[in-house]
Amino acid sequence: MLVRVRGFVAFLIGALLCAVVGVRMGISDSGASASAAHLHYLADGRVALPADYRNWPFLSAGLDMNYAPGGMAMDHHMFDNVFVDPDSLRAFRSTGTWPDGTVFVREDRAGSSKGSINKSGQFQTPALMGLELHVKDVRRFKGGWAFFAFGSEQPATLIPKTAACYACHSAHGAVDTTFVQFYPTLLATAKQHGTFHER
Amino acid sequence: MLVRVRGFVAFLIGALLCAVVGVRMGISDSGASASAAHLHYLADGRVALPADYRNWPFLSAGLDMNYAPGGMAMDHHMFDNVFVDPDSLRAFRSTGTWPDGTVFVREDRAGSSKGSINKSGQFQTPALMGLELHVKDVRRFKGGWAFFAFGSEQPATLIPKTAACYACHSAHGAVDTTFVQFYPTLLATAKQHGTFHER
Repeated sequence: MLVRVRGFVAFLIGALLCAVVGVRMGISDSGASASAAHLHYLADGRVALPADYRNWPFLSAGLDMNYAPGGMAMDHHMFDNVFVDPDSLRAFRSTGTWPDGTVFVREDRAGSSKGSINKSGQFQTPALMGLELHVKDVRRFKGGWAFFAFGSEQPATLIPKTAACYACHSAHGAVDTTFVQFYPTLLATAKQHGTFHER
Repeated sequence: MLVRVRGFVAFLIGALLCAVVGVRMGISDSGASASAAHLHYLADGRVALPADYRNWPFLSAGLDMNYAPGGMAMDHHMFDNVFVDPDSLRAFRSTGTWPDGTVFVREDRAGSSKGSINKSGQFQTPALMGLELHVKDVRRFKGGWAFFAFGSEQPATLIPKTAACYACHSAHGAVDTTFVQFYPTLLATAKQHGTFHER
């Protein structure tokens, strides 16, 4: 119930903020973009971490993934966990693509081999090594999508459009700049809807 | 008027008591145990896969984890994803332990290194290699917990109590037979509540 109330309050705040921004930008009645329900933007453009993202649907986890041939070996192991907001996942299951307002959270955690009774392989530890957002908001961002990185407990900062992540996601994302090719339960949906590009 | 008010108060107290007793005994209004909300048992004791488990909160993913020293090397890579039903996770966050009715789903997926633009590390593929449940139901199962394994699309069969998973989870699970030591966002909660055992 509390979550619902909080969610509703967050929605109201988001809606209000978007209305204010909309008026300033000369945008009329259409009001809030869908992402307002999930994201809270500050006046300086930074964005707060969605408080409940660990309850959002999980898409996949990878270990030590590297897209660069001959990339430097790391001196540690790292898992990446990807979550997406539930409303957008519901829309994806119906359409095979992401609606405006989609929010992904990528959480990087240190992996460890030795601990408790584990003898080999890797498990995830509480050590958080990174936290990023990938957000679709066609009116707010040129190209429709933006990345944000959290450096600490503070709200996240927009990653500049010149960063490699934009070009790489744009060139290699199987569906609308996203790496659906690495999300095991979404691949088939995208293929069925004809939205999947082999990349 | 006073009588009416008194009667209403008594009714409220009675209703409250029934609710408390009902909750303590794990009885909901249908008479089913709390897990009934998430699990559907057949007359022969088999159990159906919760249809929406991929929308349940994700606890962690491991890669090629092995608890046996000198365990055989596998000729493939395998991720395990662990999900838990949302009601029980909410209870865990308040109490540091699992309520009656808790349902875990463990999903094993083949890992792959080469695919799309990935050059090293491992990502998850659609190839499902295993699906198991770990269920707490103190009236249904001696010891309170049971494991079920899915072999195919069919409902899952109870894993016999003599199987190694029971003894291992009982001896090494940090919280009430569960491996909370490998769930990065739950460790601190259990420690705060004094329910965590170093194992």
